[in-house]
Amino acid sequence: MNTTYKAIELSGPGKFSEVRKPLVDPGPGQVRIRIEACGVCHSDAATVEALFPIDFPRVPGHEVVGRIDAIGSGVQGWTVGKRVGVGFLAGFCGYCAFCRNGDLVNCLNQEYTGVHHDGGYAEVMIAKASGLVSIPDDLSSADAAPLLCAGITTFSALRNSPARAGDLVAVLGIGGLGHLGVQYARRMGFEVAAIDRGTDTTELAKKLGAHHYIDSAATDPAAALQALGGATVILITASGGKTVAATFKGLRPSGVAIVVGVGPEPIEVSGMDLIFATRKLEGALTGTPEVGDITLRFSALSGVSAMIETMPLEQAAAAYAKMMAGNARFRMVLVTKNGSAPNAR
Amino acid sequence: MNTTYKAIELSGPGKFSEVRKPLVDPGPGQVRIRIEACGVCHSDAATVEALFPIDFPRVPGHEVVGRIDAIGSGVQGWTVGKRVGVGFLAGFCGYCAFCRNGDLVNCLNQEYTGVHHDGGYAEVMIAKASGLVSIPDDLSSADAAPLLCAGITTFSALRNSPARAGDLVAVLGIGGLGHLGVQYARRMGFEVAAIDRGTDTTELAKKLGAHHYIDSAATDPAAALQALGGATVILITASGGKTVAATFKGLRPSGVAIVVGVGPEPIEVSGMDLIFATRKLEGALTGTPEVGDITLRFSALSGVSAMIETMPLEQAAAAYAKMMAGNARFRMVLVTKNGSAPNAR
Repeated sequence: MNTTYKAIELSGPGKFSEVRKPLVDPGPGQVRIRIEACGVCHSDAATVEALFPIDFPRVPGHEVVGRIDAIGSGVQGWTVGKRVGVGFLAGFCGYCAFCRNGDLVNCLNQEYTGVHHDGGYAEVMIAKASGLVSIPDDLSSADAAPLLCAGITTFSALRNSPARAGDLVAVLGIGGLGHLGVQYARRMGFEVAAIDRGTDTTELAKKLGAHHYIDSAATDPAAALQALGGATVILITASGGKTVAATFKGLRPSGVAIVVGVGPEPIEVSGMDLIFATRKLEGALTGTPEVGDITLRFSALSGVSAMIETMPLEQAAAAYAKMMAGNARFRMVLVTKNGSAPNAR
Repeated sequence: MNTTYKAIELSGPGKFSEVRKPLVDPGPGQVRIRIEACGVCHSDAATVEALFPIDFPRVPGHEVVGRIDAIGSGVQGWTVGKRVGVGFLAGFCGYCAFCRNGDLVNCLNQEYTGVHHDGGYAEVMIAKASGLVSIPDDLSSADAAPLLCAGITTFSALRNSPARAGDLVAVLGIGGLGHLGVQYARRMGFEVAAIDRGTDTTELAKKLGAHHYIDSAATDPAAALQALGGATVILITASGGKTVAATFKGLRPSGVAIVVGVGPEPIEVSGMDLIFATRKLEGALTGTPEVGDITLRFSALSGVSAMIETMPLEQAAAAYAKMMAGNARFRMVLVTKNGSAPNAR
């Protein structure tokens, strides 16, 4: 076995470089993963553009799939050879006030993969065992990768929402998150309305499972949702203050708008719209590791898959640029030589 | 018994006039009430300033306390002589989709008292039996009146919130709603932080039950709440977009800001603040009739009372003007000659 591995790291904001890093053993509570695939997510900008404080050099990437090849002390329930995923939340500590109350997503010592420590744009990474997700055998590593962040985020938000079978659920923005949101919403038994600007995605949205398509450039989306009886949930994947405000009133009474895609502008809603139908606006941050397992299993069982384009790890900078330019349809996935092996599935 | 009664009605926006109106019998599902007291609420502006579409002439007032003196056909559970209250929500229909799902506050046929039909600035009113609230014997009618809207609104919002005994709850704005919110929060077992501008209300807030007072003119309220461990709930009684934004980050992870006071400006929150601690913003619209009963009983049992100033019904215009000018400390209550009788308690 090599004593070094290839990684694409950032030496500073926007500065990608291919390096070799020394292989290290996993510490207590950690595992080492031979990476097969890693999705390129819009949140990678936190690292690449240093939107968060970053201690460079840093390897980005938080939609990681690979096989465990070494296990640190104290790790239970995971074995060498097992195919696992790592998402944005790197693993809970288990002893802070939030962990001790079961609110793992809000663990006070939660680190973000590829932000606070090296992530998945590499052939190898060290991961905290408490954050690992199981990958079902019938999903390829490349197909599974985007589900670790985009998938868990949309699935968990819908699963934890008040919507029940037969309720109207709207998905605002049919992109990297939204094209998964529509698929999950349909397969959870909701009546699904997809909302985007223009008519380019109409056919695709229907194919993904939307019963209705609302072109927000041509129609008032709130009025269109009200004409359908009002949405119990609006999954907001395309942020932007005015977009949310324009759609919010499409919620039926007691309905909730769940923000999963974040933009720089503040989100605006009217106090009247909040109070006079007891509507809600909330944020959702991916999900617990257990919901991660369920997301992957549900995706395999119900045939949800991200539309992906794969590129070799070495082309990470190009894949990132394509995604940021809005030209990915819809998720870019980096694959390593491990992922090209026949056992990658 | 007289065949007419005195009422203060609006002939048009801002135009108060004292009139006599003919006594009518309650229709099916209605009761007739001899009014003893009626609170003057900021929401009366909906009628007085015609902020809602108003079919003038209209008698405003939705914090009504009086005795039933006649009962329409089909009314069950209420008897002549019983002292009752009427709040903003005039009563649910019982047959719309929301009623049939138990969401009475959002009844599609819900009327607002003093907005869609005549309210409590009068000696007599007709009310829907489904909206009535029981008044405990040990509350005077004048003391009970403000609890019918300001009381139920703050009590119901806190009672339905995720806050549990020992959690930090902040009340933003110590006015007509907030001074009740602080009392309820304290008596529900929360650690209570009152937030207002300046130091004028520091002592009062403490006296009402606040453990902490945060002067938002001198201190960043979000940072002050975080220094206390973060609030599980912020009850927002003073609306205004920037005020909410400045306080929102004082919520601990999974915390919720509940808007009960509405202003004209949109409310702004950042997507980051929503997502990265899974925070929520929601509106609350008073409560169900049953929660109305509980509000009044809880208030009597635990000694919560509004700070009130009474004026005779005839001075409604002056009472309204004082309230709108922000000079009420904290609730104006109109009393009728019925309410001056010895049996008013």
